[in-house]
Order: sequence, then C-alpha cells, then structure tokens
Amino acid sequence: MKIFRKLRLHELLYNKKDKRLAAAIKIMVGSKPLNLSLYKLATKHSSAAEEIKHGIKASNERLEFLGDAVLGAVVAEHLFIKFPYRDEGFLTETRSRIVNRESLNQVGQKIGLSNIVESDLSGKGFYSHKSIYGDTLEALVGAVYLDRGYDFCKKFVLTKIIIPHFDIENIISTTTNFKSKIIEWSQKENKEVEFSLKSVTGSQRFKEFTIELKIEQEVYTEGKGPTKKKAEQEAAKNACEKLNLAL
Amino acid sequence: MKIFRKLRLHELLYNKKDKRLAAAIKIMVGSKPLNLSLYKLATKHSSAAEEIKHGIKASNERLEFLGDAVLGAVVAEHLFIKFPYRDEGFLTETRSRIVNRESLNQVGQKIGLSNIVESDLSGKGFYSHKSIYGDTLEALVGAVYLDRGYDFCKKFVLTKIIIPHFDIENIISTTTNFKSKIIEWSQKENKEVEFSLKSVTGSQRFKEFTIELKIEQEVYTEGKGPTKKKAEQEAAKNACEKLNLAL
Repeated sequence: MKIFRKLRLHELLYNKKDKRLAAAIKIMVGSKPLNLSLYKLATKHSSAAEEIKHGIKASNERLEFLGDAVLGAVVAEHLFIKFPYRDEGFLTETRSRIVNRESLNQVGQKIGLSNIVESDLSGKGFYSHKSIYGDTLEALVGAVYLDRGYDFCKKFVLTKIIIPHFDIENIISTTTNFKSKIIEWSQKENKEVEFSLKSVTGSQRFKEFTIELKIEQEVYTEGKGPTKKKAEQEAAKNACEKLNLAL
Repeated sequence: MKIFRKLRLHELLYNKKDKRLAAAIKIMVGSKPLNLSLYKLATKHSSAAEEIKHGIKASNERLEFLGDAVLGAVVAEHLFIKFPYRDEGFLTETRSRIVNRESLNQVGQKIGLSNIVESDLSGKGFYSHKSIYGDTLEALVGAVYLDRGYDFCKKFVLTKIIIPHFDIENIISTTTNFKSKIIEWSQKENKEVEFSLKSVTGSQRFKEFTIELKIEQEVYTEGKGPTKKKAEQEAAKNACEKLNLAL
C-alpha cells in the first residue's frame, strides 16, 4: 500500500470529481493527498452526509473534533514559543482569540473551502450553518493530521492558516486591557482620569461611539468603536501610547 | 549540542538533585530526559517559583497550558480511532471525563509526582492547591513534548497515562444516562417508574445515598452513591441490566 501511494498509483483510480478535490487540496495544504478519502470526509457537511448505519452519518463532524484538538495544540506551542515571558492566562486568552468559530470561518472562506464543501442547505436558514467553513477548516486539519502526521500538519497549520491569516500582534493589542492600564497609572500618579461619551452616530444597527478620555478634566485622547466598551479601549490605548506606558 | 546530548555528556554536569529528578523522570516517562531543565520547570509549582523578571515567575503554569493542549489532541485521536462509529458529542464527552482536574490529579499522585514536585504550600490551605498533581502532570506532558517531540509524547501519554490508569469502557458506561434510558423504557412499556430516597448514611463530609427504583410500586433495584444523582444513575443502571436494555 505504501509503495502504491509512493508511486501515486492511487491517483490512477481518481474520477473527475476526485481529481478536482485532490487539486484543490494540493493548493490549500501545499501537497497532494495521500489518502483522498480523508479529505472527502472532511469536506462533507452533515447536511449532505448519507446514513451509513442506523443513525450514523458519515459527515465531517468527527474529523472536526480531532482537528480542533490538533489545531489547539499547534497554536498552543506557537504562542508558547513566541511569547516566552507571558503567563498562561495571556496564552489561553490569545489562543481563544485565534481559534474561534468566527475567525476560523473567515479563514475557511478565504482559503476557498466554499468551492469544495459538500452541503445541502436547501430549506435551511443560512444562519443555522454559518460556521460551516470554520467547521470544515477544523475537519481539514484533522484529515491532514491523519493523512500526513503531526509534524506535517503543524507546518500546514502554521504556514497556511495562522501566519498568513492572523495578525497576532494586533490580536494581542486588542487583548490587553488598556482601560485598566490607564486607571492603574492614574492611581499611581494621583491623577484624575475620566471616560465620557462624546457622541453616538450611525444607524440603529451600526452605531459608532466616540469616547473622550480626560486627564485632570482636560481631553487627552479620543477613541471610536462600535460599542462603548471598544471606544473606551481605543481611547485608553491612545492614551497609553501618548504616555509611553509599557504594554 | 546534539552530539553532546547523544553521548549523554550533559549528565556529567548533573548535581545530586538533578540525578534524582532524571531517575524519577526515567521511571515515569520511560526514557531519560534530554533537556533536564524542561522537567525542572515542569515540576516547579508556582508557590515555589522565584521571580525571574518583575512580575514573571518561572513556574510550571506555562508548560501546563501547553501540556493540556497536547494531552487533548492525543486523547482526541485515541478516542477517534477506538470508536469509529460514535459521534463527536460522545467523543467530546468521553474526553472530558478522562482529561479533567480530578482524574488527572489522581493519576499524578499515582505515578509519584508528589515525590518530585517543588512547592511551598506552607500557610496555605491544602484545598487551594488540590489540583497540584494534575497540573504538574499536564506540565510534564508539555515538557516531554518539547523534549522529545509529538510522537514520543503521544506514546508516553497513551502507554503511561491513559491505558494503565483509565478504564475507558467503564467511563463510557457511566457516561450513558441510565435514568433517561429507564424513563424512555417506562413510557414505551406504559409502566410506572419511581426513584425514591431510601436512606442517607455517613458523615457530614462523606455521605452515601441509597436510592430505590420502583416499577409499578415494587422495588426493582437499588443504587448507592455519594450524591443522589449518582445513586439514581446506579439504580437505573442496575435496572437496565436486569431488563436487558441495550445500552
């Protein structure tokens, strides 16, 4: 079987659809599949899965479970090495900002999973399946892991998912609680700091809040955002920068 | 450095304490450490850690974060392969019953981590550190991963932690919700089923509840446990067996 795979003889058995999937996987993963059936399963959403035994569907959900775990381990090591002086609370928080439904879904769409996912969402609201590409991305990680082993999969996750699609520095800067940094500073320096709402603009659905940060009753910085909290963070971040506070 | 390690020249630099730790790790992990400093860090509880920079302590908490992730991936794959026909809900639930503070803490104690953990719990209640061995076990997994790579670490986790210390069949049987099985059966068969508390014995801290399961007002089975819920499960499990209900 191994020599069969090595000589790529299995590719002779591919039908047209298989060839298309194998080509897409090659682009996404960086290497041709050894065991294509894993990738077929990874791209099969439960809505398109047939029952193989009473009550058991061959969908990508089991691979998603596996891929989620492998992705978690790869990202954990990446952050562990990248931030040797940050504590486990920071590492946990930063990882959860990378590995979450929303961001994985976006990456899944960006790398083109919508072209290869098999699903049958007819009659179902889009929103009941809005994480379909994120789920499929996790399943793909599970398939790559089983197909090529941990080290290959780690390289795939880092070079094709994490590094090109996540700006970790930016993620961190939004993780840092700037507001509490500023309050800490004000207490140490014995200064009066105040956050006040300057304006709310935009429509009912897309509001923009503007917050002024005052130090000793004088406007020092301003911040804008879709929520009051985010605008406060932004104002506080600007103040931290202006005050040269280490982050 | 590699050849230095290969010839085990680094062991010449071990002091007495290092030698003792290396010997303990060899027994636990199945192989001598290559980079002992990883294991020194893994066995350093935060209560015994010195500050290396302002606010930064060199304790095992970062390795615990990494080890938790690697352990999660290894157990995920193990269950994925062991149960090819079970869905991801079952896999997730079963994994969380294996990888949890309580069970890891017990295993940590069993493999002898209490002999090598460095901690300073003086003046602190035992209960504030009751997961110390489970946390250290996770940190040890993180250290083995960094020291020897994923495949070695996976073998370590499976052969030294999971297979000898977890009875997965038993874990699954307690995962099954026997009470709902019985209630389902009673509705189908149109029988009256009742759970009633027969007695509570034991001290304030260690109670034992006894629950009777009655079918058509007659005692059919009994169950005991440290909580009412567990005693009910036990009584229901016994009834499922007596009724030959498929689980």
